[in-house]
Amino acid sequence: MNFDLSTGVSILERTPSTFRAMLDGLPPVWTDANEGPDTWSPYVIVGHLNHAERTDWIPRAKLILDQGPQRRFTPFDREAQFRESEGKSLVELLDEFAFLRAENLGTLAGWKLTDAQLSLEGEHPAFGLVTLGQLLSTWVVHDLGHIAQTARVMAKQYRSAIGTWRAYLPVVDR
Amino acid sequence: MNFDLSTGVSILERTPSTFRAMLDGLPPVWTDANEGPDTWSPYVIVGHLNHAERTDWIPRAKLILDQGPQRRFTPFDREAQFRESEGKSLVELLDEFAFLRAENLGTLAGWKLTDAQLSLEGEHPAFGLVTLGQLLSTWVVHDLGHIAQTARVMAKQYRSAIGTWRAYLPVVDR
Repeated sequence: MNFDLSTGVSILERTPSTFRAMLDGLPPVWTDANEGPDTWSPYVIVGHLNHAERTDWIPRAKLILDQGPQRRFTPFDREAQFRESEGKSLVELLDEFAFLRAENLGTLAGWKLTDAQLSLEGEHPAFGLVTLGQLLSTWVVHDLGHIAQTARVMAKQYRSAIGTWRAYLPVVDR
Repeated sequence: MNFDLSTGVSILERTPSTFRAMLDGLPPVWTDANEGPDTWSPYVIVGHLNHAERTDWIPRAKLILDQGPQRRFTPFDREAQFRESEGKSLVELLDEFAFLRAENLGTLAGWKLTDAQLSLEGEHPAFGLVTLGQLLSTWVVHDLGHIAQTARVMAKQYRSAIGTWRAYLPVVDR
């Protein structure tokens, strides 16, 4: 499927509610669980999504739209949430995500992007030239990937509890 | 983590809202999309969850709790949703899921299960002896696995739209 603004936004606008439905009020044995050393818990994932709302999608889209002399993105900090989430409850992070996402989708809608603009390019620090359409598609897939990851992280906590059913539930071994 | 009734139920009671948040109102290009021949769309997945609410978890738990002479589970029909969902909209399936799940969790709560009961056994048609605790843990992991699958199926629709970002987003190649 090709990227299309309204189809893409239909996922982006649902992600904060999806995380809230999945995580709000869950006991910490689920929300602080991870997949082992150097892996992320649902709590860490929501903090990461917030950092991306602040520094990745919209700032990079602006850089592309400006088409100024400097079109190279600032590298994304994959560890920022460990610092930024400090002292915040999961509910605070979920509220923050809903707020930042709504604000960013407001900015995106305000741009009334044309197909020509979706083809404009920026420079990814690792991949080189990428288009605005690819950046916005990545925003969508990034959301869905982290929803899948959150469900998988929690599923793994019952890897031994399910006994022989493990053979039918590949999610605990992914 | 060992299975524990209230911890397990905290996931089970959220799954219908998670699916609703993720899917309700999305365009069919997302909800009818799949991963290729003989794979399931989000629409098919919700129908499958409904069939499991009707025929799998609670009926099997009852069979175990009864400890009658026949403790072998009826094999689960993995294709039933293609028949049962016919003519139903996704919203109807989501409503049905919320209704059936609430009803089933009411039944479960009413049993006030003890640890001794969680150790009672039934016979899985493929695996042989399994405990009630394993069955209920599997219910939880089954939910989470299908949340992850639903997100993955939708993510894959943008596999080519994300261009070179594909290298950072393994969800589209799983």
